[in-house]
Amino acid sequence: MRGAGGRAGLRVRLPRAATEAARCLGLADPLHRHAAEELRSVLEPNAERLRATLEAFSSADVGGTPRGGVSRPAASDADKAVRDRFAGMAGDLGLAVRVDDAGNMYARREGSRPDAEPVLVGSHLDTVVPGGRFDGILGVGLALETVALLNDADTRTARPVEVVNWTGEEGARFPPAMLGSGVVTGAWDVEYAHSRTDAAGARLGDELSRIGYLGERGNRLGSFFASLEAHIEQGTQLEEADADVGVVSFIEPVRWCTTRVTGRGGHAGGPGPDGRAEAMVAAARMVAAARDASLDSGDFKTTVGTMRVEPGSNNVIPHEVTFNLDIRSQDDDTLGQRLARVTERFDEIARQEGVEVAVEQAWALSGPPFDASVQQLLARVAGERGVRWAPVRGHIGHDSLHLASMGPAAMLFTRTQGGLSHCEGEFAPWESVLTTATVYANAALALADAETLT
Amino acid sequence: MRGAGGRAGLRVRLPRAATEAARCLGLADPLHRHAAEELRSVLEPNAERLRATLEAFSSADVGGTPRGGVSRPAASDADKAVRDRFAGMAGDLGLAVRVDDAGNMYARREGSRPDAEPVLVGSHLDTVVPGGRFDGILGVGLALETVALLNDADTRTARPVEVVNWTGEEGARFPPAMLGSGVVTGAWDVEYAHSRTDAAGARLGDELSRIGYLGERGNRLGSFFASLEAHIEQGTQLEEADADVGVVSFIEPVRWCTTRVTGRGGHAGGPGPDGRAEAMVAAARMVAAARDASLDSGDFKTTVGTMRVEPGSNNVIPHEVTFNLDIRSQDDDTLGQRLARVTERFDEIARQEGVEVAVEQAWALSGPPFDASVQQLLARVAGERGVRWAPVRGHIGHDSLHLASMGPAAMLFTRTQGGLSHCEGEFAPWESVLTTATVYANAALALADAETLT
Repeated sequence: MRGAGGRAGLRVRLPRAATEAARCLGLADPLHRHAAEELRSVLEPNAERLRATLEAFSSADVGGTPRGGVSRPAASDADKAVRDRFAGMAGDLGLAVRVDDAGNMYARREGSRPDAEPVLVGSHLDTVVPGGRFDGILGVGLALETVALLNDADTRTARPVEVVNWTGEEGARFPPAMLGSGVVTGAWDVEYAHSRTDAAGARLGDELSRIGYLGERGNRLGSFFASLEAHIEQGTQLEEADADVGVVSFIEPVRWCTTRVTGRGGHAGGPGPDGRAEAMVAAARMVAAARDASLDSGDFKTTVGTMRVEPGSNNVIPHEVTFNLDIRSQDDDTLGQRLARVTERFDEIARQEGVEVAVEQAWALSGPPFDASVQQLLARVAGERGVRWAPVRGHIGHDSLHLASMGPAAMLFTRTQGGLSHCEGEFAPWESVLTTATVYANAALALADAETLT
Repeated sequence: MRGAGGRAGLRVRLPRAATEAARCLGLADPLHRHAAEELRSVLEPNAERLRATLEAFSSADVGGTPRGGVSRPAASDADKAVRDRFAGMAGDLGLAVRVDDAGNMYARREGSRPDAEPVLVGSHLDTVVPGGRFDGILGVGLALETVALLNDADTRTARPVEVVNWTGEEGARFPPAMLGSGVVTGAWDVEYAHSRTDAAGARLGDELSRIGYLGERGNRLGSFFASLEAHIEQGTQLEEADADVGVVSFIEPVRWCTTRVTGRGGHAGGPGPDGRAEAMVAAARMVAAARDASLDSGDFKTTVGTMRVEPGSNNVIPHEVTFNLDIRSQDDDTLGQRLARVTERFDEIARQEGVEVAVEQAWALSGPPFDASVQQLLARVAGERGVRWAPVRGHIGHDSLHLASMGPAAMLFTRTQGGLSHCEGEFAPWESVLTTATVYANAALALADAETLT
């Protein structure tokens, strides 16, 4: 990015956070001169059309809830309905739609160089139950709006633009999360994806087939020039920075640790407090110790969201308590060090309480960082468009995390209210949505015309 | 109790604990002179017969498990089988068996004064799943052995002796616990008892009827002169005192407090540790704080045996955590004060963590103390028989707790190994069993001949 001034004639309201970020990010122009020079038009989103698109993806006939949310588990009837709608809208925009063997949908706008790697835009249309009306939906909506703007401008980009709707990003019905993008990027075999079952025992493969969205392996995305995903923030960094748009530097790596504490069971009326080796008390001290360690250190965070207590009777001292420790930090190294510190603390507590503790890593997510060149492009476009933006970090997995292992990927975040997400109250202010759409469309256009990223 | 010497000719090995207890308990001779003078014979248990009785109540055909325990939920087929066996054994001893409308079985040995209130002996034959081969069984076995010894001695006591098998003491299949004795003592209406359902929805009334043990209301125990129950300790007080028999002073009162902690939910990747109002962390601090308070104070104890975490996903900050606090102390006043202190601590923690906490008392047990006169008799008999005994407190509900609200009740505890109970490993050393049988039978004889308790 080039300083904070931007081009003459553009209104510039670059906040301090952005200036600082520019200093951090800003090296040379990230795009090859060819692309930068050829940013031929400035795309301005059509507010009415964008709003209609977002409403079409959250109306009652595609899983919209009476309280303003959306309940649309992957491969459900509601998911079929919204996929049909997505295909219809893509068709209306002149896009060719294909479906791969993981149920991922791609809607392609050809470029002038049909052999060139495409620019990938989009997100996912499945939700948690009940979910909000922005998560995933906004990312698909902004991608379609971008294509519509290119159509409006009658612009033929050099590269193809592909709007994608990934299957089962949420993992709410068929865990794990980010399944469709995981298949395409090689994180999972497609057989694994097909064999995932929901709570009722239905298999994802069968359900995709049932709703008519089990496609061909040959339709999978092969490679891409750059990938751009917009998403609501699911946090409060943008509110705190009073910015509308976030340029995401990275998504925090995460580890899940199954922590099993084994003590001595017995009747609650039995031994006095001195004579116990009690899994529940030790586990409680561990939960508190993890929090205290994160407060002390300030550079990682922990969450305990599940706890299984055995045997689970009011008047029986549990002999075993198992909880999951979700731990996140800024990078893998820090995370590893902090986890080691926390588990040391767990060991100490176990010794003091006379119980055993075993910490087993059940899941880890540590994607490569997002592409610096694309981040710089996003920052530059935001600066040029006078957008209040800030560099942010992602705290939650997204399909782009898988994509970053396959090619240059980046994300934009849209400001949300109070960090609410995955719930019916999820809300992104309209101004932030429009502002994100502006940055998104113009960055996509720049990428679609770029010859190389440097 | 009269000093530590006992009668000439009796071997006396009174431990120090008993001497101290004697000082505490010992006032005048607790029994009216009439009874004390007329302790006509000294009953010595028949070890072989007693062992056979205990084995008959824990053999495979009445619910015995391959690993040496017993699985015999109330009103199950195994319970029917053991009830049939109990009735047969009682009949063989010349006892008249009747069944009341709660399924309680009474086997009566008539006295010379048939109108006199009976001496009640016995316990329960139902178990948890899997339970041990002593809990409840031992109490019924010692009662039958006492009758057998009276028969051996050809002694006709003044009062009738009734051996009882209470229905559903465990509450494991049909909660709450101590249901049969609760009906007889007025704690529960019989309609309530009949309507209790098991996990499969079966009603206790129907199940009692199915197994042929739904009897008549008129058969209920009306009143008793004194009640005596033997039970394994379910703790380690006797091991610590190196004694075989415990004279139980009281059962600790218990309260169950449903503690609901409500915080702010969200995604685990969302807010940093500073910005959270987290139910799980607050609940953990409360569990630890309850333990710390009990360690500091030393006169109460707490157990958290259940914890419900909402919504219960690895990567979701729980918005609500509910746990049960089981709290026990030596008497109601102390218990009330300690509970108040603990809930104050909970409130402090809730304020510090920015969450809400609500503590609701869900259940309380605070029976009247056991009868001092009967305790003194037991201590005296134990002393005279040279038994290693100690005063102990009960930590767990027993039918005698209900009975103590109806008349003079007392309990003897038999030493167990390592405090194990309600499990297949439950074990009472044979010497302790025989020693308890001696004290039990001779005290029952004294009570059956006593005119009054003073």
